[in-house]
Amino acid sequence: MINKLVYNHAMINQFSFDLLAVDGKARAAVFNTPHGSIKTPVFAPVGTQATVKGLTPEQLISLNSQMLLANTYHLYLRPGDELIADLGGLHNFMNWQKPILTDSGGFQVFSLGEINKITDESVTFQSHIDGSYHTFTPEKSISIQENLGADIIMCFDECPNPYDRAYNEAAMNRTHQWASRCKDAKTRHDQALFGIVQGGIFTDLRIQSAKHISGLDFPGNAIGGLSVGEKKFEMLEILDIVPDYLPADKPRYLMGVGTPLDIVQGVARGIDIFDCVNPTRLARHKTAITRTGRLNITNKIYEKDPAPLIIDCSCYACQNYSRAYIRHLVRANELLGPILLSIHNLHVLIELSETIREEILKGSFHSFLKDFLTKSEENGVPK
Amino acid sequence: MINKLVYNHAMINQFSFDLLAVDGKARAAVFNTPHGSIKTPVFAPVGTQATVKGLTPEQLISLNSQMLLANTYHLYLRPGDELIADLGGLHNFMNWQKPILTDSGGFQVFSLGEINKITDESVTFQSHIDGSYHTFTPEKSISIQENLGADIIMCFDECPNPYDRAYNEAAMNRTHQWASRCKDAKTRHDQALFGIVQGGIFTDLRIQSAKHISGLDFPGNAIGGLSVGEKKFEMLEILDIVPDYLPADKPRYLMGVGTPLDIVQGVARGIDIFDCVNPTRLARHKTAITRTGRLNITNKIYEKDPAPLIIDCSCYACQNYSRAYIRHLVRANELLGPILLSIHNLHVLIELSETIREEILKGSFHSFLKDFLTKSEENGVPK
Repeated sequence: MINKLVYNHAMINQFSFDLLAVDGKARAAVFNTPHGSIKTPVFAPVGTQATVKGLTPEQLISLNSQMLLANTYHLYLRPGDELIADLGGLHNFMNWQKPILTDSGGFQVFSLGEINKITDESVTFQSHIDGSYHTFTPEKSISIQENLGADIIMCFDECPNPYDRAYNEAAMNRTHQWASRCKDAKTRHDQALFGIVQGGIFTDLRIQSAKHISGLDFPGNAIGGLSVGEKKFEMLEILDIVPDYLPADKPRYLMGVGTPLDIVQGVARGIDIFDCVNPTRLARHKTAITRTGRLNITNKIYEKDPAPLIIDCSCYACQNYSRAYIRHLVRANELLGPILLSIHNLHVLIELSETIREEILKGSFHSFLKDFLTKSEENGVPK
Repeated sequence: MINKLVYNHAMINQFSFDLLAVDGKARAAVFNTPHGSIKTPVFAPVGTQATVKGLTPEQLISLNSQMLLANTYHLYLRPGDELIADLGGLHNFMNWQKPILTDSGGFQVFSLGEINKITDESVTFQSHIDGSYHTFTPEKSISIQENLGADIIMCFDECPNPYDRAYNEAAMNRTHQWASRCKDAKTRHDQALFGIVQGGIFTDLRIQSAKHISGLDFPGNAIGGLSVGEKKFEMLEILDIVPDYLPADKPRYLMGVGTPLDIVQGVARGIDIFDCVNPTRLARHKTAITRTGRLNITNKIYEKDPAPLIIDCSCYACQNYSRAYIRHLVRANELLGPILLSIHNLHVLIELSETIREEILKGSFHSFLKDFLTKSEENGVPK
């Protein structure tokens, strides 16, 4: 019995969260995991199918990627979580030895799968790949995530249309029940299970959810169900309130949200962890991002342009290639086009997170925020 | 006048060919170019549109790629050779500072373009991209290749169906006239222009062509019009004879030919330089190559296979990933699938070339060849 307690204590320490500085609501911290420490605020690139599209792990490391996200729904369907477990877990399978976070599959079941039936017990859905039927329960989601073996795993949750109050209240209550079941189902001690706050755009539901989830004492907490169709100002209203109801001594993760402006505004409201498919998806749609804008590389004005994507950018793509070359690659459907754009876009978000962290540590985040919002507004970036 | 001679002499020395060892007809040499020395025998990866599909130059360098090939026809059409010249030439445009070879566009004009009219003066064709009309002359091909700025450039040639004797004789004569016109049209001293032997499967035409081209005293010579539909034994019959009629003190390049067996058999017949799209094309078709066989990674037997693509292979893909993972990537249409397969396939050919070179330097190429042919036959590789 003592041995078990000592063991659990050691495991809990693997996930310690050390708050280094607070500037307003913004926080700089270190979150320790079995695969290394994460300096927050942090942006996590998304490797949906156990690969960040087009990039090797070495390229991601040279971008200073500290952690990746992978999707439980996709990996369960293909190649299967048991196969990944047999091959040593996700870290070995995909050759990534830094921290990984897996979502619960909840969001994808509701957005990608064809929903067949939802009860308090389970969700039955059809695969987007072959139409086959599958049933997820909170226990099943945890079992899959234990097979995948990420460092941070998520509670199974329901993510409805954010505007339907009655549905959001029901889904929130279900998400709360499922959170307890996930906690009970968990058996591995080398994974940190995060709770998820739901409640749509309704601040009272969000507060109720944040209080409930906080009460379950997870080693970290997430805000789900944002950036799913609501207006930016509605998202910010929720972010103005919810983090205050989540414990300050644990990491806070804003799921699936991660434009440069989102990150700055999220950090200003107390968020530590972000992920988003945008940088790599935009890259595949021929778009380079800047901190406060975008550039469509197929634009004719770049045809003969010897300048890098973004002047003064220190990323590999900008240090070595011209707009003219990347435009050529994209127009010629060459794989290197989206690869270079992905490298650039991820660099922008990761470097932005690093800058934000430095500003917090220096105590100058507030003036950085003011400048950033001014520049974004000047560039017409939607607030 | 003296200055000019000295200058030309220095330039000619940039392309010196130092024969280090001969083993039977096989040769180990160093070919010096303005962008560095090439140790031969060498396999050149193909970067048709100024990029080897899916790979960065750094990945190619870590594969020990010594030189790349790029295609004049494609780059003339898109993004345009003048644009590339304005951006500092192909080396700067694509961020590759080692030697580059461009073909003349001849082969692609005849194989990809819709031919409108061929005369002794010129070829008019329609672009495979947009159907627009273009005219190539030998002079135009040289002008484009001077704009691209590769280290090794090729004479404009006609590459017909290898079985039509009358056509091959006419095309050969035209190719000979065009070779002289290319030589006269050339103005840059930092590029080596290679002649091309044609003549289909007809040994007398091939000998006639090799003698004629040798007489034009190019700094290197190529054999074109092989691997274009003829049988393997027919190709070998040509390769048994032609190199003997090409100067021994200059590099010999076998155009567009490069399976492992082709390389071994080509070297055994006196070839120094090879290029082929096969390794990267097969990679995009889900296939890994070995020295003496192939492996279709989508095969169900690899579903849970923790082994690398090829046991004992030292490439990045085999050192870090399982067959199961690469199969998953390929089935999930993930870009990293063909990228890893391309890395592996190029490694096999480049490492094979390095092994062959060592065997020649040791004087043991003949026994290596014998072993190689035995293993290929055992594995049912077509001779």
